[in-house]
Amino acid sequence: MYTLYFAPGTAAMLTHLTLIECGAPYELKAVDLAAGEQRSEAYLALNPAGTVPTLIVDGASHGETAALAMLLTERHPEAKLAPAIGDAKRADYLQWMFYLADTLQPGFRQWFYADEFVPESAESIAEAGRHRIEASWTRIAEHLDAHGPYMLGETFSVVDLYVVMLMRWARNMPRPATDWPSLAALAAKVKARPSWKTLYEREQLSEWA
Amino acid sequence: MYTLYFAPGTAAMLTHLTLIECGAPYELKAVDLAAGEQRSEAYLALNPAGTVPTLIVDGASHGETAALAMLLTERHPEAKLAPAIGDAKRADYLQWMFYLADTLQPGFRQWFYADEFVPESAESIAEAGRHRIEASWTRIAEHLDAHGPYMLGETFSVVDLYVVMLMRWARNMPRPATDWPSLAALAAKVKARPSWKTLYEREQLSEWA
Ligand SMILES: N[C@@H](CCC(=O)N[C@@H](CS)C(=O)NCC(=O)O)C(=O)O
Ligand SMILES: N[C@@H](CCC(=O)N[C@@H](CS)C(=O)NCC(=O)O)C(=O)O
Repeated sequence: MYTLYFAPGTAAMLTHLTLIECGAPYELKAVDLAAGEQRSEAYLALNPAGTVPTLIVDGASHGETAALAMLLTERHPEAKLAPAIGDAKRADYLQWMFYLADTLQPGFRQWFYADEFVPESAESIAEAGRHRIEASWTRIAEHLDAHGPYMLGETFSVVDLYVVMLMRWARNMPRPATDWPSLAALAAKVKARPSWKTLYEREQLSEWA
Repeated sequence: MYTLYFAPGTAAMLTHLTLIECGAPYELKAVDLAAGEQRSEAYLALNPAGTVPTLIVDGASHGETAALAMLLTERHPEAKLAPAIGDAKRADYLQWMFYLADTLQPGFRQWFYADEFVPESAESIAEAGRHRIEASWTRIAEHLDAHGPYMLGETFSVVDLYVVMLMRWARNMPRPATDWPSLAALAAKVKARPSWKTLYEREQLSEWA
């Protein structure tokens, strides 16, 4: 039994449709976005991003609609909603899921919430981007403080490589990601791996070694 | 043997690090971003998004760094870079990969390429977002024309649900996604599924039924 926190017609729709396609039993809990319920203490405890959807799976709560859709395809393979690992279509599948999440979906945020991109009139678009980035560092650092030292706990994974690559991009920003101690500790661990040194040689990088 | 098209220190770094961590044999091809090589006809044939990385896997080319990293973890499970399907950490893993792709990585585009968000000075931020969205519809429609009718070819998948949910969001935009015939055809197929009707009942939706 799953529990889906949703609001009608939002990003939660993909998770909801996938639940229906899987034929999985679930219950719905409506989140009143207009009333700001997504920013209530109770809801933030379930989903620190303060967005819908949130899905409760085996008692634990998770966010990100594309991740939830992908998870449901794995848990219900009989619904045949995704190519299995090893299938020739697997690379296309993953590529499109991330293209939609990284390119198209953020375009909608810009269209619908244009204000978010310039929170104060005197600010530039770049500054608004900086605020988004710093809010993400805070969220990730809080996660590491509670559940670290790696992104998935005790075990290193490709998520750590992704975070540290993005941290490197912020090295010359007004507030580099290493300002957050648990992020600095994660970067130190990743940089100590032989793969980091090999990469620097092969890409002939020097900064932020 | 993999072939990685990359530029030093870019989004390609995650794919490159993952290749090294997997111990997989690969060759590197440098793409000169400053010279605009990513927009050459030859490169766009490999990666229509015109970005690095591109990875050649079994003779086929694929983009999106997070998707490629995830694919490599699946093809090289002995490197233990991701929790396997069924592992209790799987939901966290997927959630973080999409959080980074959908929230943090687009923040950097805004910081580094602020100009892209306002291509002409008279345009609003929302209009710039609209252009990003319309460029995505064109890219997806071209893909469907060549490889449709579904996003993964002959077989329906969760990618189609994701595309059609995002199409629905554009229903009141100046140029709705149904203006692109192959997208309209995809939406018709998805809307004909029983799950769509069930969702409309459960979320009490009416528009764009
Ligand atoms: N990356 C998240 C984004 C979800 C999202 O942006 N949800 C919107 C509704 S479409 C939301 O909850 N907005 C409420 C708010 O931002 O306060 C996902 O894909 O699940
Ligand atoms: N969503 C793509 C984005 C990749 C991307 O933005 N790459 C940048 C370098 S960091 C690029 O190729 N820029 C060249 C350009 O946009 O012309 C991914 O994650 O692979």
